[in-house]
Amino acid sequence: MLRIGITIGDPAGVGPELIVGLTKHFDDGNAYILYGEEKILRACAQTLGRELKVHLINTPEEADKPGTYLIDLNICEVDRPNPSFTSGKVGVAYLGRAVVDAVYRKIDGLLTMPISKFWAKLAGFSFEGQTEFLAQAFGVKDYAMLMYSEGIRVALLSTHLSLKEAIDKVSKENIVKKVKLIVKEYERWFGHPPSIGVLGLNPHAGEGGTIGEEELKEIFPAVEELKSEGYMVEGPLSPDSAFLNLSYDVFFCMYHDQGLIPFKLLAFKEGVNMTLGIPFPRTSPDHGTAYDIAWKGIADLSPSLHALRLCEKLAKRQKEGNLS
Amino acid sequence: MLRIGITIGDPAGVGPELIVGLTKHFDDGNAYILYGEEKILRACAQTLGRELKVHLINTPEEADKPGTYLIDLNICEVDRPNPSFTSGKVGVAYLGRAVVDAVYRKIDGLLTMPISKFWAKLAGFSFEGQTEFLAQAFGVKDYAMLMYSEGIRVALLSTHLSLKEAIDKVSKENIVKKVKLIVKEYERWFGHPPSIGVLGLNPHAGEGGTIGEEELKEIFPAVEELKSEGYMVEGPLSPDSAFLNLSYDVFFCMYHDQGLIPFKLLAFKEGVNMTLGIPFPRTSPDHGTAYDIAWKGIADLSPSLHALRLCEKLAKRQKEGNLS
Repeated sequence: MLRIGITIGDPAGVGPELIVGLTKHFDDGNAYILYGEEKILRACAQTLGRELKVHLINTPEEADKPGTYLIDLNICEVDRPNPSFTSGKVGVAYLGRAVVDAVYRKIDGLLTMPISKFWAKLAGFSFEGQTEFLAQAFGVKDYAMLMYSEGIRVALLSTHLSLKEAIDKVSKENIVKKVKLIVKEYERWFGHPPSIGVLGLNPHAGEGGTIGEEELKEIFPAVEELKSEGYMVEGPLSPDSAFLNLSYDVFFCMYHDQGLIPFKLLAFKEGVNMTLGIPFPRTSPDHGTAYDIAWKGIADLSPSLHALRLCEKLAKRQKEGNLS
Repeated sequence: MLRIGITIGDPAGVGPELIVGLTKHFDDGNAYILYGEEKILRACAQTLGRELKVHLINTPEEADKPGTYLIDLNICEVDRPNPSFTSGKVGVAYLGRAVVDAVYRKIDGLLTMPISKFWAKLAGFSFEGQTEFLAQAFGVKDYAMLMYSEGIRVALLSTHLSLKEAIDKVSKENIVKKVKLIVKEYERWFGHPPSIGVLGLNPHAGEGGTIGEEELKEIFPAVEELKSEGYMVEGPLSPDSAFLNLSYDVFFCMYHDQGLIPFKLLAFKEGVNMTLGIPFPRTSPDHGTAYDIAWKGIADLSPSLHALRLCEKLAKRQKEGNLS
């Protein structure tokens, strides 16, 4: 039996209704431990005309047989907060409790629903996002996000930097280091070393140095060094045609939108964000709080369901000691 | 009756076989005038086991009734050149002759097959591409490429610049000027002013100025100015989610791959490159010479067929005097 932790995220967002939806898809053999609070989940279920059955517990150990459990933090002033300091604050608190249980291995995997960076920051959360918080909690400095779907997997050299700053990160050293991390962690979780398609930075991957110099100066030497050490990498690939051939296990992209534009187009309904680098299975759906459509029952469950299934798969692999 | 000119492009590329394929789809009511040479087209048709029936003419006026015609420049030393100085040189010569006929309105529209920038430049072609050559021939300084398909249309602020240089072009002035050109020309050819979705430059369109400043300093003011003058523009849109909603007539993108990555994914088999700004219908398929698969009969005819149909449509509109 696996114990899968699930945070409800910012309660003003789509997290609560996605949780209500997910409960119908829980595996009979596992214990699912929700981190949030009862009054919010009940209010959300009621608004949508849905049912919710949970066992209230105080610690994950009490989830001693398969079922749906809730660790009720009971810190929110209202049943249904608006997007606010309050919703930001409690979303972070649910995450904090879940991460403590993760670090102490009281759960086997963690699925996180979205929080709002804006409101979380105003509420005192000093991390760029949930991933950074997890990395710090696990004492990890080198980590990466893998955007995962059946059809396409994307990893990024940098994430939420301005495009100008992202270009400055395109160095041989940074590329080699990040690709090595991704290969090591991918193999750890999926059992085989990935083939990696490394993207160019400029149009047509620089067209032989006539459109920008980063390919010749940084990316190509990085690819050559990795190849010489036995890594299965190819590149630099021309960005506008690279995604027409999805034969690589992972596309390694030079900046956020180079990877996220094609990923969202190709994996819209099943995009999962997986954290590489921490020694613990953690996934999340690849979308935000979506405040504008929250509590209406119209949020698409599909990305969360894919994130749950991947989390279960990784947790099982870890628990059975199959990690490379 | 329309007279549609078609250049065969670099003869070592996929141009000749696409021409052979296109002849089966010519409209019974039009005259199609190929610019190339007989021995190459015959060699290509023979290699593919296809037939080719053309009437040889010296000037477009001789194409006085519907049919397939060829202006045979007969300058290539061999029937089937390899990618080389020779193939580059003759591809440019075919284009040159066609453009002269276009400027003197001896043809009603022009479809161009791809040339190789690399070999064309070595052969003395001093333009960035065929579009720039056409613009100069028509005495036009302000022009733009519109990537056209039924589902999505994309225009770019800059094309083949390094990403670093492309960022430097992101100014209010440049955006306003280019969007106005695109709106004017789109309305001219399609009969109504387009709605334009203006993309941001940075991840999440800068997220309120926290990830880069170009949105607040340049893009948003450009959009506001255009709006105040009655243009139907919205933005800056978050790049990674903008293409999930294809409701704009045109996406105006800040750099090459921001537009070309989604365009190639969404319009792979029907992508047409249309020149805006010159007073003449000109289209081309959105791909290159594809030397590696040329003369094998496996090149996809679909983009060229879409480019032909759009060229015919624009030529008809111009000939009937329906231009705005």
